[in-house]
Amino acid sequence: MKKSILLLFFSLILMNCESTSKEEKINDFAIIIHGGAGTILKKNMTDEMEATYKAKLEEAIKVGYTILKNGGTSTDAVLKTIQVMEESPLFNAGKGAVFTNAGTNELDASFMDGKTLNAGAVAGVKDVKSPIELAIKIMTDSEHVMLSGEGASAFAKEKGLDIVNPSYFYTENRFQSLQKIINQEKTELDHNDKKANFYDPIIKDSKFGTVGCVALDKFGNIAAGTSTGGMTNKRWGRIGDAPIIGSGTYANNKTCGVSSTGWGEYFIRSQVAYDISAQMEYQKKSLKEATKDVIQNKLSKLGGTGGVVALDKNGNMSFEFNTEGMYRASMDDKGELIIKIYKE
Amino acid sequence: MKKSILLLFFSLILMNCESTSKEEKINDFAIIIHGGAGTILKKNMTDEMEATYKAKLEEAIKVGYTILKNGGTSTDAVLKTIQVMEESPLFNAGKGAVFTNAGTNELDASFMDGKTLNAGAVAGVKDVKSPIELAIKIMTDSEHVMLSGEGASAFAKEKGLDIVNPSYFYTENRFQSLQKIINQEKTELDHNDKKANFYDPIIKDSKFGTVGCVALDKFGNIAAGTSTGGMTNKRWGRIGDAPIIGSGTYANNKTCGVSSTGWGEYFIRSQVAYDISAQMEYQKKSLKEATKDVIQNKLSKLGGTGGVVALDKNGNMSFEFNTEGMYRASMDDKGELIIKIYKE
Repeated sequence: MKKSILLLFFSLILMNCESTSKEEKINDFAIIIHGGAGTILKKNMTDEMEATYKAKLEEAIKVGYTILKNGGTSTDAVLKTIQVMEESPLFNAGKGAVFTNAGTNELDASFMDGKTLNAGAVAGVKDVKSPIELAIKIMTDSEHVMLSGEGASAFAKEKGLDIVNPSYFYTENRFQSLQKIINQEKTELDHNDKKANFYDPIIKDSKFGTVGCVALDKFGNIAAGTSTGGMTNKRWGRIGDAPIIGSGTYANNKTCGVSSTGWGEYFIRSQVAYDISAQMEYQKKSLKEATKDVIQNKLSKLGGTGGVVALDKNGNMSFEFNTEGMYRASMDDKGELIIKIYKE
Repeated sequence: MKKSILLLFFSLILMNCESTSKEEKINDFAIIIHGGAGTILKKNMTDEMEATYKAKLEEAIKVGYTILKNGGTSTDAVLKTIQVMEESPLFNAGKGAVFTNAGTNELDASFMDGKTLNAGAVAGVKDVKSPIELAIKIMTDSEHVMLSGEGASAFAKEKGLDIVNPSYFYTENRFQSLQKIINQEKTELDHNDKKANFYDPIIKDSKFGTVGCVALDKFGNIAAGTSTGGMTNKRWGRIGDAPIIGSGTYANNKTCGVSSTGWGEYFIRSQVAYDISAQMEYQKKSLKEATKDVIQNKLSKLGGTGGVVALDKNGNMSFEFNTEGMYRASMDDKGELIIKIYKE
């Protein structure tokens, strides 16, 4: 009898949960982007820099918004929006990518189509102008999900994608960051163990700058993509979470789309992008509840830092991060634009 | 009122589910392995070949079993068991790995520790004798989860791992498989489109042969590992699911450990390894229910083929595959050994 009362009580709680998470189409189409997360503090930022970042985020998201508004696909919106950020030296993706320990730029990207659950990813290319375009091409034109290195470049050439001289990715700013870290590392190596460089707060921040985009189109299809230069001073052919489906990128029309940015190793171990979808599917959580649990609870407990942008099948959108800031923007089907940098 | 009755009914169902999935420690320690899944038919197998495979599976699993029985760790059991299979030309991992389109052997592996959720993975190494050992070394001795190509080899050298001449991985058998496929491809390319080679049933089968192991030790720690040569005739630096945490390998002391084998692209898109854990954690499914849903329902619907071996925190074990056969074995804490090849 006591058990029955308990269960009845439990049932009433369930009823309540159900009513609060009632599904309702909020937006017919929507788009959300990030340009990286990390220690972005207002005190380190001039008004001019802030305006420059915001203007580029606005330019990028409006490209995707216009595609969606005109009845284009979420795939096309994600591609074209990310390409604006890849072409800007402001972000750690495409032009503006950070330098490896060997002084090269090695680019990663991934993409997922929420309708078919098809996906494409690329790791470690040095001469493909738009890594996100290559990720999509791998999805559509090969039987594979993930290609890497020179092989991936050869595939890009076969498919006629834009190939550039590796110097295209060079930016003075990022090159100086590498020199600073190498010098600091030299000093630290004299006093410390070899692992010190990876605990360096500068590196931790320098590696944040991945860009990403998630879009829902008028046909109800969700697409998600992520593009990055990885981690300053990376070596040993390190692969982070950006090209890993389920960690850096995930999309499923049944639930949501997610693009991650942050300390890649923790995002892989936490299965960040797919875990948000799994909590929505299996635990019936809302997008907000799922992103919050995965970033603020699970990822944080493990020691990971970073964030995600996510969007569900009803057009709900969520920014979630545990760092000081995340370059981010969203637009709904009414054209309402939100652009933010710092924590609120 | 009607709703209350319905809810009460629902509560009773819930109660019932709870009692059937009651958690009980089945084994203090346990180990389960696979040597690949695919079209393995009794009619194509001589008694001698069958005995040879079974003997090697038995040799491998007993190495891990003995470690666990003597109070060793699940990490050590997984490492040493997989090494026996890597050193055997029977399996597509280490010696005996399939050949790429370029006539090389490029090896992938991954490992996850269910206690710390730490992980290590390597993609595309050509001269490291034991890829699974390298995956574990990346986990324990670097700040990274995933390294690739020549960079990963450089790391292996720095850490003093066994480096071999790439010819170590050569086996006549696998080399002939590549020639057969290349010849067939040439014929097909004359008549068909460029994608034909990937639909070739020979390739589909040739790529199955990944090895994997999951172990639970007396301390309650689960570890999982996977090692492979990938896909015969692979090109463009293709990376399959074996080195992808959450797809090829996953372990979590709270739920289970999983190692996958099969058509890698589908295992990535389906998030096979982590999805089994997520269904156990979020839907309270048993290991058997979760592995069955992920392989027979979700993976199959997408068109993927292959299987998993999995083991939960209570020592329950599960073989699950949708192919004609899977080389597989398990041992429980009573020393009971199961070795099987075909579907039953």
